[in-house]
Amino acid sequence: MKATTNLREIFLPRSVAVIGASPTEFYTISLLMGKLRDHFYPVNPNYQEVHGLKCYASVLDIAHPVDYVILDLPARHVLKAVDDCIRKGVKCIHAFTSGFSETGRPEGIQLEKQLAALIMGKLRMIGPNCMGVYCPESGLSFHPASTHIRGHIGVISQSGTFAQYFIQEGRSRNVNISKMVSYGNAIDLDCPEFLTYLADDPDTHVIALYVEGVRQGGPVRAALEYAASRKPVVVLKGGVTKQGGRVASSHTGALAGSGEIWATLFRQTGAVQVDDVDDLLNTVIALENSRLPAGNGVSIVTYSGGFSVVQSDMCVRAGLEVPQFSQPAVKALREFVPASGTMIGNPLDAWQLFYKYGDNEKSLKEVFEIIAGEQEVHSIILQFDIIRFMLGMWGDKFEERFTIITDRILEGCRFARNGKGKLVLISMFLDCYSENEQERKYSVAFKRRCEQEGFPIYPSLNSAVKAIANMYRYIKIRQGRLLKAG
Amino acid sequence: MKATTNLREIFLPRSVAVIGASPTEFYTISLLMGKLRDHFYPVNPNYQEVHGLKCYASVLDIAHPVDYVILDLPARHVLKAVDDCIRKGVKCIHAFTSGFSETGRPEGIQLEKQLAALIMGKLRMIGPNCMGVYCPESGLSFHPASTHIRGHIGVISQSGTFAQYFIQEGRSRNVNISKMVSYGNAIDLDCPEFLTYLADDPDTHVIALYVEGVRQGGPVRAALEYAASRKPVVVLKGGVTKQGGRVASSHTGALAGSGEIWATLFRQTGAVQVDDVDDLLNTVIALENSRLPAGNGVSIVTYSGGFSVVQSDMCVRAGLEVPQFSQPAVKALREFVPASGTMIGNPLDAWQLFYKYGDNEKSLKEVFEIIAGEQEVHSIILQFDIIRFMLGMWGDKFEERFTIITDRILEGCRFARNGKGKLVLISMFLDCYSENEQERKYSVAFKRRCEQEGFPIYPSLNSAVKAIANMYRYIKIRQGRLLKAG
Repeated sequence: MKATTNLREIFLPRSVAVIGASPTEFYTISLLMGKLRDHFYPVNPNYQEVHGLKCYASVLDIAHPVDYVILDLPARHVLKAVDDCIRKGVKCIHAFTSGFSETGRPEGIQLEKQLAALIMGKLRMIGPNCMGVYCPESGLSFHPASTHIRGHIGVISQSGTFAQYFIQEGRSRNVNISKMVSYGNAIDLDCPEFLTYLADDPDTHVIALYVEGVRQGGPVRAALEYAASRKPVVVLKGGVTKQGGRVASSHTGALAGSGEIWATLFRQTGAVQVDDVDDLLNTVIALENSRLPAGNGVSIVTYSGGFSVVQSDMCVRAGLEVPQFSQPAVKALREFVPASGTMIGNPLDAWQLFYKYGDNEKSLKEVFEIIAGEQEVHSIILQFDIIRFMLGMWGDKFEERFTIITDRILEGCRFARNGKGKLVLISMFLDCYSENEQERKYSVAFKRRCEQEGFPIYPSLNSAVKAIANMYRYIKIRQGRLLKAG
Repeated sequence: MKATTNLREIFLPRSVAVIGASPTEFYTISLLMGKLRDHFYPVNPNYQEVHGLKCYASVLDIAHPVDYVILDLPARHVLKAVDDCIRKGVKCIHAFTSGFSETGRPEGIQLEKQLAALIMGKLRMIGPNCMGVYCPESGLSFHPASTHIRGHIGVISQSGTFAQYFIQEGRSRNVNISKMVSYGNAIDLDCPEFLTYLADDPDTHVIALYVEGVRQGGPVRAALEYAASRKPVVVLKGGVTKQGGRVASSHTGALAGSGEIWATLFRQTGAVQVDDVDDLLNTVIALENSRLPAGNGVSIVTYSGGFSVVQSDMCVRAGLEVPQFSQPAVKALREFVPASGTMIGNPLDAWQLFYKYGDNEKSLKEVFEIIAGEQEVHSIILQFDIIRFMLGMWGDKFEERFTIITDRILEGCRFARNGKGKLVLISMFLDCYSENEQERKYSVAFKRRCEQEGFPIYPSLNSAVKAIANMYRYIKIRQGRLLKAG
């Protein structure tokens, strides 16, 4: 392998060809929609032209230099195509094609070995059996639904589905990507190189990693250590159980290793390990959009006593604290938070205040101001699941009242964040199967507004709590490392 | 207290009054919409009439007998109203009113003591500080959105929000209730009596319980033991941590006790303890709609290798097994499941088959038939999150192809359930904030169809896995008890 290869050329190639291009092929469609359109060469002997672009019979027929090639053709044609690319002087190939070691069949394993031998020292390869690169800056993409918006979240995923999940679910959660790679069987470029590159990439502020296994432990340890010393690295390890490990080996041919060994590796290198893909997404959203909380004290402003109880348990189990309010705060809250059916405490069940829209009435804005002044409260979660109730209660007066209430709430949230340096997250449950169109419309509008103001929205209180808990784990890890270094 | 009171009269009263009725009051509206409309008496000195019904100044002015009274008026008027009810010969009062011991204030605690002394031996009380009873059979309800459909899930909740959550979220999850009670501060009727009643109620097949605390341990132990010996009891205990316990005591005045003691109590009595309210809902849905699996072997039919790995881990962590398929099954699957990019194993990543709509092609139907024949597989989860992809790929051909595919899938599911006695759950993730209206429309339609055929739909794979794990825990508990009894 060329030791000098700069991964920059891989994420930001000057020109791209798709071998196996067609009018309905996904990479073709994705590239046509992006910035690389004018430097994109479809290759397929069966077409003269694809969506108005000249289509080439072979990559060797292209008169211009080609930096990057995507292979989307059956496994049996791969060696020939790669050979052409080597002769053409291509710098990197991404092989979407599957049918290699992940099948567990001798012919697939053999083909993968041949492929690895063929590229060795000639060019770099991503895959095979993966989605490849998404980079809004360059226009490389594997999904027509991916946005062109440049963000600061870097994603390295051994699984294509999880990469797609970040793009699709991320669209509605305002997740914007700096660079993303799904790298599959990793016969050449592997997790450590991507980690190191994103660690140095100034556009990437936080790294989400999904890994099933690696061929050697040493490089991944060094890369994790390096990356985690520069920015937060949040990692989901697939195959931590014995049965999961068996499945991983047939998914990407990876040796999954024991869950215990990996957990120790992550702890030692400073990566934050999470349990599932939602947790991964929710945690990087919090890390990217919010300042780190100064400690593990959480306050929840809610509309429900039952939730107050259960969510306190939830916080404590996740390693957070739900500190009692100071006497002055309780006194100040008592002045305008109705005591009937609510508790003046933390979590604060202030359900009546969610419905206050009158002038000159203290409401949730003032609640936020008081709670934000509490020293032991470092994060505040607003549980805002009540649009359905408001619609039912107010009918055609809803819009006017809702505007007043949400204006005030966001004023309180801004004060807590900007004035007092607290982490503020908003949780808004919305039944995914609900057919209440009004509720959906106003929920989505409120979500957008919160996101525009930099307050991430979480689909459940549990997901917000877990995001804060993971942020706090990140802080503790960083503190531990600073102490060790100092 | 009258030892002879039958709780039947509480869930199925012959007549009801609401003290504090008004045209916009929730109980008034709920009762007007239900079967008790003709036996409902609004009481409020400020109205002559409410939605066409005569409104009485006092319960004593009603000429007819009144079995059940709902109090929706400020705490300071409660003692007088209760006194009137006693004179009227009312059998049960449900006090929605809050402002008692849950406030932690001396005047609230004092008022609650007076209230308890006043009713003692005179009538039964639910609450105060709770939503009361929902019973589709009688028409009692605390929520205008609650359906009139009679079901078989019994719900006992110390929290009003969780009771409402079961109604609202339950509507879109096809959860139908036999009897539901939110019982709040429980100064008279408490969790043990409701448990015993629902244990004997033939319309209730499974009991969901949310409890924060009880005044005495003995009765709840006996009631749990009795109920769990008759039907599944799934329980969420609020306030299992120290901080949660503090909050519980200010929510319902309950002594939450240590989480450890409660966990032991549930284990010993045979109740299945769960971690949060979604888990509670998801588990009772599975228990009500499906036969119990014969063991803990799970197979997942999915469209993603990454999910296969992570969900295997998920199953194992939850106490389930993901057994490998037998050689004959692998051989049979190999004949038509494409090996490229999928694994012939369990979980089965059969992504290409999700898109098969041609005639005479083996597809997911045949996959289900083969997997259902595996002895070590007791449950099958279909992960069906791909409607968005299908819409993107097929455009205006979607509807026709989707119908073919879902017909076949459901044929396979029916075979697995009816022919082979397997538990079959379907998980269908739908981004709650998604603005893809087509995806939503077809997802909801597919969900309805599955539910009509008796296959519960879960909003995430994780929730389906947890439901099965809780069912399996229930089986183990029952087996343990049978062994002990035998």
